[in-house]
Amino acid sequence: MTFLMLSFPERVEVFRRHFERDLPEVPFVSDAAAVDPLDVRYLMTWSFPDQLETLYPNLELIFSVGAGIDQVVGKPIPPKARLVRMVESGLTTLMRDYVVMSVLALHRRLPAYIDQQRRGEWKNLPFQWADQRRVGVLGLGELGLASLEALRPFGFQLSGWSRSPKEIEGVHCHHGADGLAQMLAQTDILICLLPLTPETKGILNADLFARLPKGAALVQIGRGAHMDQDALLAALDSGHLDAAFVDVTVPEPLPADHPLWSHPKVILTPHVAGHTRADSAAEATVANMRLHLAGLDPKGLVDPARGY
Amino acid sequence: MTFLMLSFPERVEVFRRHFERDLPEVPFVSDAAAVDPLDVRYLMTWSFPDQLETLYPNLELIFSVGAGIDQVVGKPIPPKARLVRMVESGLTTLMRDYVVMSVLALHRRLPAYIDQQRRGEWKNLPFQWADQRRVGVLGLGELGLASLEALRPFGFQLSGWSRSPKEIEGVHCHHGADGLAQMLAQTDILICLLPLTPETKGILNADLFARLPKGAALVQIGRGAHMDQDALLAALDSGHLDAAFVDVTVPEPLPADHPLWSHPKVILTPHVAGHTRADSAAEATVANMRLHLAGLDPKGLVDPARGY
Repeated sequence: MTFLMLSFPERVEVFRRHFERDLPEVPFVSDAAAVDPLDVRYLMTWSFPDQLETLYPNLELIFSVGAGIDQVVGKPIPPKARLVRMVESGLTTLMRDYVVMSVLALHRRLPAYIDQQRRGEWKNLPFQWADQRRVGVLGLGELGLASLEALRPFGFQLSGWSRSPKEIEGVHCHHGADGLAQMLAQTDILICLLPLTPETKGILNADLFARLPKGAALVQIGRGAHMDQDALLAALDSGHLDAAFVDVTVPEPLPADHPLWSHPKVILTPHVAGHTRADSAAEATVANMRLHLAGLDPKGLVDPARGY
Repeated sequence: MTFLMLSFPERVEVFRRHFERDLPEVPFVSDAAAVDPLDVRYLMTWSFPDQLETLYPNLELIFSVGAGIDQVVGKPIPPKARLVRMVESGLTTLMRDYVVMSVLALHRRLPAYIDQQRRGEWKNLPFQWADQRRVGVLGLGELGLASLEALRPFGFQLSGWSRSPKEIEGVHCHHGADGLAQMLAQTDILICLLPLTPETKGILNADLFARLPKGAALVQIGRGAHMDQDALLAALDSGHLDAAFVDVTVPEPLPADHPLWSHPKVILTPHVAGHTRADSAAEATVANMRLHLAGLDPKGLVDPARGY
């Protein structure tokens, strides 16, 4: 019942230390050539090896190295195997911190001040108090919840939207298609933290932007394919949207001549909002293995029907 | 015992409403020509009228509209008058929010990413986890304390420096000249929230920058005269400092051709980190008047010997 980890050496060594210390009963291997494929019950990887469904027929759990699993979901897997997203505190805090940074920056109109800085222009811009600013989060999983908690002390009016109904103290929660339209009409700063699924692909489109109030702003840290980039540029150019932080694009890397790079209302970062932290991810994976060995569901288990 | 307020009309009207409702026993006037100077016991203003020391000989309290009082401190005032800084929640939260925004942005290397964006360069930069990042605050008054509280949930190593010894749970506190040198050597992101006094004027100079570890960053939201701007530019150019947020300059407005505007490692905002919120300031001033009328010291009373 071997655990096979396919990743880069620094990360593998951290996981190996945790497994050898905390889960010695499960052999840990990082060289696919050094293991009998029939012994591989657990696999950690970012993308799938070719022919995964026949390569390791006894797979029980496939762990993604990252929080997103859109790179593998829907691909054939062995019959008994189940897919597990990465849920670990390091990644969660990184995403949360990027959200707080970008929301405060949009709230305080930093993109416009940076644009003024380019021209050497010293001018106080119109401004709103935080208690009059409505911040809405798309996606109320681990990352959305952590982001809302971190935004709470700043006094914003908080709301959130998810596929299924949720209740969060102090957050106006919406769900479903009607709920989305309701929330958008009352959101000044919108944050995309959705999983990428057939339902959410292209959700940040011209129609969605038009439903936001004039002057709204966007934080896009989901997946590039959530957004119609041309629609964003048009909404910024028309003045309907005020500014955007964009961390994920199509394609990645974004070509140097793409207009998102040079748009004065866009702050573009190269997919750095979050990444997995080796030590906390290793701890979370060991804990998940213990749940599984005890006959329980691991944290982050993917529902194939939902796609996340 | 009239309260005379010299400020712009929108702010005056908010104060007038609060005074008329909550402190009707104190006549509130905003037109200096409409009051007998001998009746003026309380004055709220940003800068002093000419000959203040003889103009209103019966002044008891002079309230500054802002948190800083460097624009008036040391100027002659009537013998019984005492000076009061503005301490109010609106201003405090604005400054706190700017600190969190800029610290997270420096922590996540946003200035360098914005510089890459100018060139259309998609590149992941080296990065530190928050628990390895040391954030130090100069000045442990209202603003410094609120900023440290707001930074706490992000997991930074926090330290602070003040003139006199302080104790703050979870914050490594330093004081005096030796304490400053100690703190600087262990600070990756330094925030200036000091009052401007003869002792702190020019404190952000070449010597101070040299005491910070290589790669450190700065948030300058004190007063322009705290900093030697040429020394900052030199420390950034040499690579000793990584980046800076600068909200206050000498002079203000900063001339359009000043090199701070165009430095790729500087994010420059036009003195917008904080300003007084009319309604919370009016409440705080009424509360201070009540303290004074009860024979107690108001909050924010300036010690003429310290200069703040």
